[in-house]
Amino acid sequence: MALSGKEDGGADRAAKTKYDPEFTDKVIAATGPKALPRLKEIMPSLLRHLHDFARDVDLTVAELFAGIELINEAGRMSTDKRNETGMLCDILGLESLADEISSKLLSDSGSSGTATPSTVLGPFYRANAPLLPSGSSIVYAAPDSPWSVQAAPWLTHLSGRVVSASTGEPAAGAVVDVWMADARGLYEQQDAGQPEMNLRGRVRADEATGRYAVYCVRPSAYQVPRDGPGGRLLELLDRHPYRPAHMHFVVTAPGFRALTTQVFDRDDEHVRDDTVFAVKDELLVKFEPREGDDRARWTVEYDFALSEA
Amino acid sequence: MALSGKEDGGADRAAKTKYDPEFTDKVIAATGPKALPRLKEIMPSLLRHLHDFARDVDLTVAELFAGIELINEAGRMSTDKRNETGMLCDILGLESLADEISSKLLSDSGSSGTATPSTVLGPFYRANAPLLPSGSSIVYAAPDSPWSVQAAPWLTHLSGRVVSASTGEPAAGAVVDVWMADARGLYEQQDAGQPEMNLRGRVRADEATGRYAVYCVRPSAYQVPRDGPGGRLLELLDRHPYRPAHMHFVVTAPGFRALTTQVFDRDDEHVRDDTVFAVKDELLVKFEPREGDDRARWTVEYDFALSEA
Repeated sequence: MALSGKEDGGADRAAKTKYDPEFTDKVIAATGPKALPRLKEIMPSLLRHLHDFARDVDLTVAELFAGIELINEAGRMSTDKRNETGMLCDILGLESLADEISSKLLSDSGSSGTATPSTVLGPFYRANAPLLPSGSSIVYAAPDSPWSVQAAPWLTHLSGRVVSASTGEPAAGAVVDVWMADARGLYEQQDAGQPEMNLRGRVRADEATGRYAVYCVRPSAYQVPRDGPGGRLLELLDRHPYRPAHMHFVVTAPGFRALTTQVFDRDDEHVRDDTVFAVKDELLVKFEPREGDDRARWTVEYDFALSEA
Repeated sequence: MALSGKEDGGADRAAKTKYDPEFTDKVIAATGPKALPRLKEIMPSLLRHLHDFARDVDLTVAELFAGIELINEAGRMSTDKRNETGMLCDILGLESLADEISSKLLSDSGSSGTATPSTVLGPFYRANAPLLPSGSSIVYAAPDSPWSVQAAPWLTHLSGRVVSASTGEPAAGAVVDVWMADARGLYEQQDAGQPEMNLRGRVRADEATGRYAVYCVRPSAYQVPRDGPGGRLLELLDRHPYRPAHMHFVVTAPGFRALTTQVFDRDDEHVRDDTVFAVKDELLVKFEPREGDDRARWTVEYDFALSEA
């Protein structure tokens, strides 16, 4: 294809007009009439924005290939225990933004009521955590293990209710899938000192009352992993890698929309500058000392209000 | 972060204003003062375009994760023999666009003269092909193998010169790295019937004259691979998967810029609608019958003019 010759005066326009002005339309026009309807909506916007980005910054072939190699490396690192590409999207704010969009679509549909806000899933979710009755512990490390010794001062009782956002009644059959890093900021898959699925569980709430409870730990702030392209990108951007202390949840119940969310320790110093932009005011919690329970030193409560499906 | 409440009247604006108008600025502002200078230029544009795309199409969390999974799959498929993420970029026109941008930067710097146009590298390049004297064959299959029997009618003599674009003099010490699919459209790494590195070689041009010659095959049009996310995306977009018949080159010589390019069979029916948008008029060639050479039925000539480094 021929290069277009002319540049106009404006600096903003120059980047777009010094290159073939018909190229993007040509790529968009290649899409056929039988394309998936949603892709017909998505692709023109994706192509225009990707191409405009490349033209705006005069992206070279060498830079494109550096980006391709970064993506390939993230893909190769991603398994059912870790999603490095997901983490890249988190760092770029894309998962938080998609979460805002999905939430807005839900509230526009009128079905969210006063539902608990969602936030990002993050890169450390694992499916099929142990399914447990309410009141169980998700600390699977042996009590005398080195990990348990360091974790002892941080053992925590987490409890609350799962209710319907529209009626306030218990959401019958609710399951709280919860996972968290430990007090040193490590998830079990990052730490040889923790047994498989440590600090992960799917806890059944009480049918009649919607109450759930689980013994876990008080998590700490942590640095997102530095061993892949996500951590490298943060370094190159001179960005800090911290996430404020948080617990992750996917809360489900028959007849309700699944809720993916997190609660954040409101006393954490990074609660206002989460490196993946996931904190919402409604998700801040206070950890309080717990008395009279030799299984936990801390207590925290949080109620989940689910939207009807 | 709070959702912004108001939408203005314009349909185009609505997508941007119904979401938190400060979110993208907040993500951009996280970049620190010591960020890599080029990333300081690139990231604001990348973030604005990615976020605007997500808002324009109301990208949901489920859709973002479908995209992440597609990228992870492409990354896992990509090896030193094949670059599926590169192919995705090709299908989206990104490599062709980056090639246009790099070419324009080169011609703006005044050093390109009447150089041979570049085009995309593609996903099938392999480093370290055999280094050979001019006049060698890059057909490594045994002459009596089934592959050689079917390839026999397509054996081709390729030749030309490597010269300086500014002086027209031979580019001393030039090496022509050439690779191609066979007459059935398969690269050696896609075809158990071809030996390792078949139809790949790095051929030294003559020092004094710049002439190079190589025995190879006349390639055919082919479908890009359908076994990964790239092929699946083409199907979902109702796009044809064909590339016109072509030969790939990376031409190097001391004191000159490396040239990545392809030549295309001008008689191929897909020469005007290459699925990766890589064809340029200056790169069209004519395959002619070859007489009096029992090593080749076809002949094709192409001269490479290199820019000084």
